[in-house]
Amino acid sequence: MKRIMLTVAYEGTAYHGWQLEPTGITIEEVLNQALGELLREPIRVSGASRTDAGVHALGNLCVFDSETPIPPEKIALALQGRLPEDIVVRASREVAPDFHPRRCDSIKTYEYTLYRDRLPNPLTRRFATHFYRPLDAEAMRAAGQYLVGEQDFKSFCAAGSQAETTVRRIISLEVEEEDPYLRIRVRGTGFLYNMVRIIAGTLIQVGLGQKRPEDLPDILAARDRSQAGPTAPPQGLCLMEIALYPEGFPGD
Amino acid sequence: MKRIMLTVAYEGTAYHGWQLEPTGITIEEVLNQALGELLREPIRVSGASRTDAGVHALGNLCVFDSETPIPPEKIALALQGRLPEDIVVRASREVAPDFHPRRCDSIKTYEYTLYRDRLPNPLTRRFATHFYRPLDAEAMRAAGQYLVGEQDFKSFCAAGSQAETTVRRIISLEVEEEDPYLRIRVRGTGFLYNMVRIIAGTLIQVGLGQKRPEDLPDILAARDRSQAGPTAPPQGLCLMEIALYPEGFPGD
Repeated sequence: MKRIMLTVAYEGTAYHGWQLEPTGITIEEVLNQALGELLREPIRVSGASRTDAGVHALGNLCVFDSETPIPPEKIALALQGRLPEDIVVRASREVAPDFHPRRCDSIKTYEYTLYRDRLPNPLTRRFATHFYRPLDAEAMRAAGQYLVGEQDFKSFCAAGSQAETTVRRIISLEVEEEDPYLRIRVRGTGFLYNMVRIIAGTLIQVGLGQKRPEDLPDILAARDRSQAGPTAPPQGLCLMEIALYPEGFPGD
Repeated sequence: MKRIMLTVAYEGTAYHGWQLEPTGITIEEVLNQALGELLREPIRVSGASRTDAGVHALGNLCVFDSETPIPPEKIALALQGRLPEDIVVRASREVAPDFHPRRCDSIKTYEYTLYRDRLPNPLTRRFATHFYRPLDAEAMRAAGQYLVGEQDFKSFCAAGSQAETTVRRIISLEVEEEDPYLRIRVRGTGFLYNMVRIIAGTLIQVGLGQKRPEDLPDILAARDRSQAGPTAPPQGLCLMEIALYPEGFPGD
C-alpha cells in the first residue's frame, strides 16, 4: 500500500466545492471516480483545503492510498484523459504512509481578485469579482497589516464552523494594484471557514471608506462575525499554493 | 434616425462566431435580440470584425440605426441586464449616419496566447492554447518580422474567403514571453479569413524548428495556403482593439 499526494488545479465554477456533499457534484467526487477508473480500485482522496463552491485552486493538495503498480509520479499525466477540462492534476508523488498535508506545518497562499471598471469583463468574470466603485488601495493595505500575526479570527469566521480554536496565523497580507485589477494576497498557516472571503469583504469596506484601517483591532477583539464586513463572492478567490514544511517552519 | 456604435467584449466559447448563420447562436444574433427588446424596434447590427467561432474580443465594434429617444451613450449600461454574462457592451456612442467601421481606416490589434507547460491550466484554458513542447521565441520573433508591411497574404488566408484582394498591411508583430504564457500580438489595417490563426500556426512551426524564419518570404511568395502552417485553435485568439482613423492614418 502506497500513499500518493496530488497537486490539483481546478476552476470551481461548476462545482459545489471540494468536499463530498449530497446536493451537488464536488471536486473530491470527480477525483475519486477518475482515480478509481484508472487504478481499478475504490479510491477516497483526502484534501488539504476544503475550498467553497465556486472557489478556484491552482495548488490544492490531497492524498490517497493505493495498491497500484503505476509509478506514483506518472499518475498525474495518466489521469489527464479521465478528468473534465476544469480539473487538472498537475503533479503526483509518493509520500510517507502516515503523511497528511492537513497534519503538516504549511503555508497557504490565497489570492482574491477584484476587477475594477464601470462594466464587467466577460473574459475574466469567472476569476475576478467585478467592482465598479473606487477603492482606496492604500487604506486597504493599512487595514490588512492589523491582520498579520497570530490572532483570534473569530470575527472573520462564518457561523457553523466546527473549528476547535479560531486562532490563526497570517504571515503576510498584500494589496496589489495591476490596473484594472486589485489583488489581495494572503499567506497564512491556516484559515477558518470563509476567512479569506470575509477578510476581502472587510477590506473592500475599508477601501470604500465605510470602515477605517484603525477599526480592525476592535473588529478582531470583538470576536463577533457581525463586526467584520460581508463575505466577498467566491469567484474572486483562488488557492494559489500550499507550501509544506514536514520538518516544521524554518526558524520556529 | 440615429446611427449608434457599440464597443463589444465577449467570450466566444459558447458562440458560433460573430455573424448570423443558420447552425448555431452568434454574438450578432444575441445583440440584435437584446437591442430589439431594449429599444422596442427591430435592430440589425453590422460588425467591424466577423470573429470566428470560439474567438474572443475585448473591443469589437458594430453599428446599428435606431429611432430610440434613449441617449446613445446610455445604451451600453441599459443593455447590461439584457445580455448574457459572456457578452458585455462596454461603450455606446452616436456616429455619423453614413459611418461604418468597416469602411473607415482602422488598425486592429489581435493577440494569440499560448500557455506553455507540461499540463494544461484549468483557469486559462478558454483563453490560451495549451502547448507543451518548447518553443524558440527568438526564432518566432525573427519570422514575424518578415510578415510586417503591405504584402500579399494569400498563403495565410483560409480557403473559401470571398476577399477581393489578399493584400493586407501588418503594422507590427510582437512575440512576448510572460512565463508560462507566450503572446503573439499583431497590429494591422485588415486581416483575411483565419489570417491571425494561420500566422500563429506558422510561427509555432518556426518555434518548433519545423520551419526557419528565412522560409517566410518564400511562403508569402507562394500565394498558396498549403505552404503556411496549420490554423491555430480559436480559443487562444482575442480581438483586443479596433482603433478608428476617420480622417485617414496620420502621415499617410
